[in-house]
Amino acid sequence: MTIIAGRPERLPDSARIVASALAVEGVVNAEGFHSWFARRNEQDSMYVEQVPLDSMTGWHFTPDRASLAHDSGRFFSVEGVHVTRHDGGTVEWSQPIISQPEVGILGYLVKEFHGVLHFLVQAKVEPGNREQLQLAPTVQATRSNYTKVHGGAATPYLEHFLPGSRGRVIVDVLQSEQGSWFLRKRNRNMVVETTDEVEPRENFCWVTLGQLRAALATPHMVNMDARSVLACLPLPTVEWPDHDGLTRGRYAADLRRSMWTTDTGCCRHTGSEIVSWLNDVRTGTTVGIEPVPLARLADWEISTTDIAHREGRYFRIVGISVKSAQREVPSWHQPILAPSGVGVVAFLTRRVNGVLHVLVRAAVEPGFHDVVELGPTVQCDPTSYVGVRAEERPPFLDYVLSATDNVRYDVPQSEEGGRFYHAECRYLLVDGDQASLPEHPDFRWMTIGQVLALQQHRNHVNVQARSLIACLHSLW
Amino acid sequence: MTIIAGRPERLPDSARIVASALAVEGVVNAEGFHSWFARRNEQDSMYVEQVPLDSMTGWHFTPDRASLAHDSGRFFSVEGVHVTRHDGGTVEWSQPIISQPEVGILGYLVKEFHGVLHFLVQAKVEPGNREQLQLAPTVQATRSNYTKVHGGAATPYLEHFLPGSRGRVIVDVLQSEQGSWFLRKRNRNMVVETTDEVEPRENFCWVTLGQLRAALATPHMVNMDARSVLACLPLPTVEWPDHDGLTRGRYAADLRRSMWTTDTGCCRHTGSEIVSWLNDVRTGTTVGIEPVPLARLADWEISTTDIAHREGRYFRIVGISVKSAQREVPSWHQPILAPSGVGVVAFLTRRVNGVLHVLVRAAVEPGFHDVVELGPTVQCDPTSYVGVRAEERPPFLDYVLSATDNVRYDVPQSEEGGRFYHAECRYLLVDGDQASLPEHPDFRWMTIGQVLALQQHRNHVNVQARSLIACLHSLW
Repeated sequence: MTIIAGRPERLPDSARIVASALAVEGVVNAEGFHSWFARRNEQDSMYVEQVPLDSMTGWHFTPDRASLAHDSGRFFSVEGVHVTRHDGGTVEWSQPIISQPEVGILGYLVKEFHGVLHFLVQAKVEPGNREQLQLAPTVQATRSNYTKVHGGAATPYLEHFLPGSRGRVIVDVLQSEQGSWFLRKRNRNMVVETTDEVEPRENFCWVTLGQLRAALATPHMVNMDARSVLACLPLPTVEWPDHDGLTRGRYAADLRRSMWTTDTGCCRHTGSEIVSWLNDVRTGTTVGIEPVPLARLADWEISTTDIAHREGRYFRIVGISVKSAQREVPSWHQPILAPSGVGVVAFLTRRVNGVLHVLVRAAVEPGFHDVVELGPTVQCDPTSYVGVRAEERPPFLDYVLSATDNVRYDVPQSEEGGRFYHAECRYLLVDGDQASLPEHPDFRWMTIGQVLALQQHRNHVNVQARSLIACLHSLW
Repeated sequence: MTIIAGRPERLPDSARIVASALAVEGVVNAEGFHSWFARRNEQDSMYVEQVPLDSMTGWHFTPDRASLAHDSGRFFSVEGVHVTRHDGGTVEWSQPIISQPEVGILGYLVKEFHGVLHFLVQAKVEPGNREQLQLAPTVQATRSNYTKVHGGAATPYLEHFLPGSRGRVIVDVLQSEQGSWFLRKRNRNMVVETTDEVEPRENFCWVTLGQLRAALATPHMVNMDARSVLACLPLPTVEWPDHDGLTRGRYAADLRRSMWTTDTGCCRHTGSEIVSWLNDVRTGTTVGIEPVPLARLADWEISTTDIAHREGRYFRIVGISVKSAQREVPSWHQPILAPSGVGVVAFLTRRVNGVLHVLVRAAVEPGFHDVVELGPTVQCDPTSYVGVRAEERPPFLDYVLSATDNVRYDVPQSEEGGRFYHAECRYLLVDGDQASLPEHPDFRWMTIGQVLALQQHRNHVNVQARSLIACLHSLW
């Protein structure tokens, strides 16, 4: 170790992340971890039932049923919008959307034990979860939460993420969430290292990234916020040393190589070409968002029980009553978005110049902060396309849905249970090496390392792609 | 040279940029370049005179004098806004602002001659320039320009920057411009390499970056758009080889080292810490922009000749008539923003851990796309602070203005002459090694390399800081 001007030269964070990923067990072994989680599952519970929209305590329709808002004016609201997208042609539609302009914090506290980074995971129940308990980041707090608008208890461990008392920052990047359901929502995705003594509370546990990787292979075990942050972890951009703990097999080795390959001659496009393509979309597309009262949204109807599309498509907004002994406030009412179907989120992969690439899509979503972000190859609710002609179905959807022995990952995962009710997607990785895949102007082949590099900077990669990239960590 | 999968391994662009910077002469020698520029100065001219605001052909006040707009609805408009900034305290004010939502292109076409990259520079007159002719990028075009809303001629060389016919992209990044004068304006800053035969038209010339560096030491010779793009050029992030062409002297060597030093133990803060600090400002600050009709702006008055602040501060909006034989359209009227005083744009430098750092400021400007960007240490019009108490003057302004033998660069440069009339700033680099500079929460010490790294990504570094960084290239 050399010391330069008082700052110890340590291993790069990216190497420490890989070391933690290779640690199958940590201060708590597999058995201890699973019995802790099972115990939390017995003790944490949440009672959720549907209530009429206009009888929710603390919530009201604004005049003329323009929007559905919290009495404090904080948290979030459900608004109506008319969206117009011009990019040569014009597409327009109306929809309800969740407006949550505050920037919250999704943060992992990490700490070295016996030289290995451990992540302080939280077992957390959310009202929209189908499986009630999931692994969340250490802190998952809206600004209203942590400035205590709800009058509840303080968010545990929050001080490690705030200016003044903050630990050493490994990740801090503003990222978008579902741009079709949220209007310009962003959260700070953070990983902060502490050297303090930190006692885990009963619903928290120190685990290695290796233990989290195993959890990512399990349905509905790692929540969306956790997946979003885990995807932002820095990885080495040079060849990783060979190691006993690495998964064998060609596809796993290909995934690793794709993760460390950034701008070399092996990449199908340079990073600059990818950014240039996104800038073409960004400057050639106009997305207009006009507010429209919920009661006047074309194709949508407000009833006592929900706000729903006339044909039952997309999603409904319903009201729920929640009771929980474990949360900052013991009971509350809130609106929540219930999708109509189970989504599909998939990356197609193929080898280009001998290196595995994933097929990314230029995703334009109305709620994005800056028009376009990189998305997975397929991201949709197939039930919205029942009966739709082949040429109007999302590209590659049918290929993905019909894939069989070239499927490398196929695990259902939950979306954010604080705003979405029983929202789940089938996350897929499909090896497209043998397929004849046409070039398409909305798609580009990139190495995973190139996606990771862009993802270090705000609003480049959407939440579905981040979430799926986190899932890929269970494969190598 | 090795060939991998059909893509030749060439020197990295950053190394080719340094090689061009060290080339004092290119296909045109110094004498040829200066005689070309002098000849253009004789032949290109523009006749500009002031006209009443409401008699401008093609422009009109909208009803109730709400705004000043082009009859086509394109180009740009002058709007009124009330700005409210909350960040613990609240500051609010009203002002006119230029709205130009279209994203334009500022682009250099580059090409190798005898193995050295050359830049195709344009000698361009703008109506707001005090010195009429300046060196501009190859293409400097608003979307209205290049989609020919004005009905004029096509923009030369534009095809090299458009999808389909575009050359190899070296730089393509969306950057903001003056956030106090423009509402959310952004331009694509591009550098594109061609291998085509390209004949320079009479107002274009192929020069090396070395020749541009010399021009950056000359007052008002390189225009703002050119400086903005030149600042975005990639530079090596490892030690540059020693070379005969390098300027000698400790400060020049320190500048070079600062430029290639990114995240090593020598940096005062890590890149993650800097981004985290910007995220603190971004999430802790709310900037509200409410439209207000120009005629009802508090503290501003519309007369026949201008829109002006009652105390003569800040700037005026005036109307001008322009005649030019060289432009796409031979004559036109337009509004233009005329600042009241000469601005000051300065970086303080100091050695930290033996490496030169610059003092950057978290600049919050109402027109920014995402609340905050990195700005220079000082960026203001000192005439706006005449008579203001010391504690309310911008930090470090008085130190910079009183600096004498520790001034390393002090050259007046012009701001964009298409929208601003006789707008100029004194660009300064001041060595603060001997000064006792207090820590200030709005400022951080960064190496130039760290600023350059963030600047590769959209909307991280404001136009004044970029412009000054381009100027620094004349010093090493």
